[in-house]
Amino acid sequence: MIVETQYLDLPEPLALDCGRVLRDVRIAYETYGELDENRDNTLLICHALSGDAHAAGETPGVLSAGELETTSLGWWDAMIGPGRAFDTDRFHVVSTNLIGGCRGSTGPGSIDPDTGKPYGADFPELTVADLVRAQKAFLDALGIPVLAAVAGASLGGMQALQFAIDYPDFVRNVVAIASTKALDTQGVALNAAARNAIRLHPDPREGMRIARQIGHITYLSRESIRSKSADGRFGVESYLDYQADKFVQRFDPNTYLLFSTALTRFELDESRLGDAKARFLLLSFSSDWIYPPADSDALLESLRAAGLDARHVSLETSYGHDAFLLEAENQAPHIRSFLS
Amino acid sequence: MIVETQYLDLPEPLALDCGRVLRDVRIAYETYGELDENRDNTLLICHALSGDAHAAGETPGVLSAGELETTSLGWWDAMIGPGRAFDTDRFHVVSTNLIGGCRGSTGPGSIDPDTGKPYGADFPELTVADLVRAQKAFLDALGIPVLAAVAGASLGGMQALQFAIDYPDFVRNVVAIASTKALDTQGVALNAAARNAIRLHPDPREGMRIARQIGHITYLSRESIRSKSADGRFGVESYLDYQADKFVQRFDPNTYLLFSTALTRFELDESRLGDAKARFLLLSFSSDWIYPPADSDALLESLRAAGLDARHVSLETSYGHDAFLLEAENQAPHIRSFLS
Repeated sequence: MIVETQYLDLPEPLALDCGRVLRDVRIAYETYGELDENRDNTLLICHALSGDAHAAGETPGVLSAGELETTSLGWWDAMIGPGRAFDTDRFHVVSTNLIGGCRGSTGPGSIDPDTGKPYGADFPELTVADLVRAQKAFLDALGIPVLAAVAGASLGGMQALQFAIDYPDFVRNVVAIASTKALDTQGVALNAAARNAIRLHPDPREGMRIARQIGHITYLSRESIRSKSADGRFGVESYLDYQADKFVQRFDPNTYLLFSTALTRFELDESRLGDAKARFLLLSFSSDWIYPPADSDALLESLRAAGLDARHVSLETSYGHDAFLLEAENQAPHIRSFLS
Repeated sequence: MIVETQYLDLPEPLALDCGRVLRDVRIAYETYGELDENRDNTLLICHALSGDAHAAGETPGVLSAGELETTSLGWWDAMIGPGRAFDTDRFHVVSTNLIGGCRGSTGPGSIDPDTGKPYGADFPELTVADLVRAQKAFLDALGIPVLAAVAGASLGGMQALQFAIDYPDFVRNVVAIASTKALDTQGVALNAAARNAIRLHPDPREGMRIARQIGHITYLSRESIRSKSADGRFGVESYLDYQADKFVQRFDPNTYLLFSTALTRFELDESRLGDAKARFLLLSFSSDWIYPPADSDALLESLRAAGLDARHVSLETSYGHDAFLLEAENQAPHIRSFLS
């Protein structure tokens, strides 16, 4: 499946929680599967800190010096497609790059229409509610009247939860994977250290190497990080360096700061849970120490206390937080059953 | 108890595992309690990454502008003294600053006699065996023929274990707290990220802020880090900044690199365990996720497999790795009983 990223310019400016207004907002997105006649089978995928709109399929190969260059597979390809967890035979799956991003949507690398220069570090601070507000405006512009489901993991799961509160009549089902009502203090601290690494370095891109290494360690379990060291314990050091090298080539440190801040500051407003009308599926991973199953248990309790239809499945895995990317076969049956 | 740090210059150059030789080695040290007539009641304290020779008692107040400035209490004062875990009524307790350190012993801030300039980043790489070799040379110069015990936590525990292997006739008892045969891959990775933060910053002292924050997070448990946030989850961010500010004022980034490398590269040579003649007490802390009780269990197994007299007590605590500094009352009975 070859997929090309598309672009949509929001017709209206976007008001943000910080009080600033974003003008000329462009959203990069991809779609997989067909929108049905009732226009009610759209499933929105929300990406996590380092994701983008390219969630599934292959990018078109680029012809370079007469050779077709390698195509790249979407970050959740194992979960999206015919017969997969997010079944494109049933759903019109839509995936966007978040505002504040660096992969096609308006973000710190975009030109600020007020100054004619890139926003850079002056891009306005974003909340999870802002990310969701932009996605809602995008779906409106795309002519989508309702979401059959909204799904995401980590920061993506926070968006899915926020969507159900902010647009209760718009969201029928929520799949929140490896998510939480609010990141625990240990996660707050690790994210703060990562952002400090970017902020305290004269070249934020260099500082982002450290941020990425801290992040990467937290996404792996104590067990799974051992497997990154083919040559014994110290292979992990070159593995982390390699991951940091790859990351700084494709990612914007200002985007990192924006998304890390948004997910760290996220707190589910439990007083508004009663507004939600969606059903909820929570998935968590036994070896995820940064978004542990206990956080999804606490979330489940809050959802049920608000009278909502919610279930939580904690999956046994050694992959840690990264299991949401790596273990499609464990997640798929629960998601398919929930959405059927 | 007012204690002044003393200094001893080693009479001979010190050969290091890397092949280089340190000349004009000075050791900063303190002693608590009296050496008995048989000269066989010395208990050596080995410090961890950020420690120094000032393990117990108060430093002399410094007269400044007519006022007596605050004295500072030793980092293990709760453990060292009359009737305490390391009982100064029985033992002649000796504590040194490690070579490579920045608190009085020869380290990166010292003048390299070959160049007339401070070593800085050119200070030779150190192993745990090097740290121990320097301490043995120091004890020889002090006229100590045998150690009643050697004790330490974390990197200090590694030294205690290495001492028993390298100088089997010199060491009667080992107390290794929150230690390990070899740091697990997760710890290797976190230490690598911390060292990278120092190495990749044009001002290593600024980079050390991030290293310290990463370290600090690993020393706390998921539970205990919550208590660092008096004002909710985000108090931990200013707490980490404050800790980093304090740390960069007193610590040398080159020392950080040396000790972090030494403890990360440490691997107990099990093939030589049979040489040891000491008895071993291992203590670990239930909520210590970086040197977990399972690591001490594995160490215990190796010691017993080598026919050694060893015991392991895992203590229930929410303080994480830092419990070795904070929970003297839990550790003391086990240490006193072991040493009696």
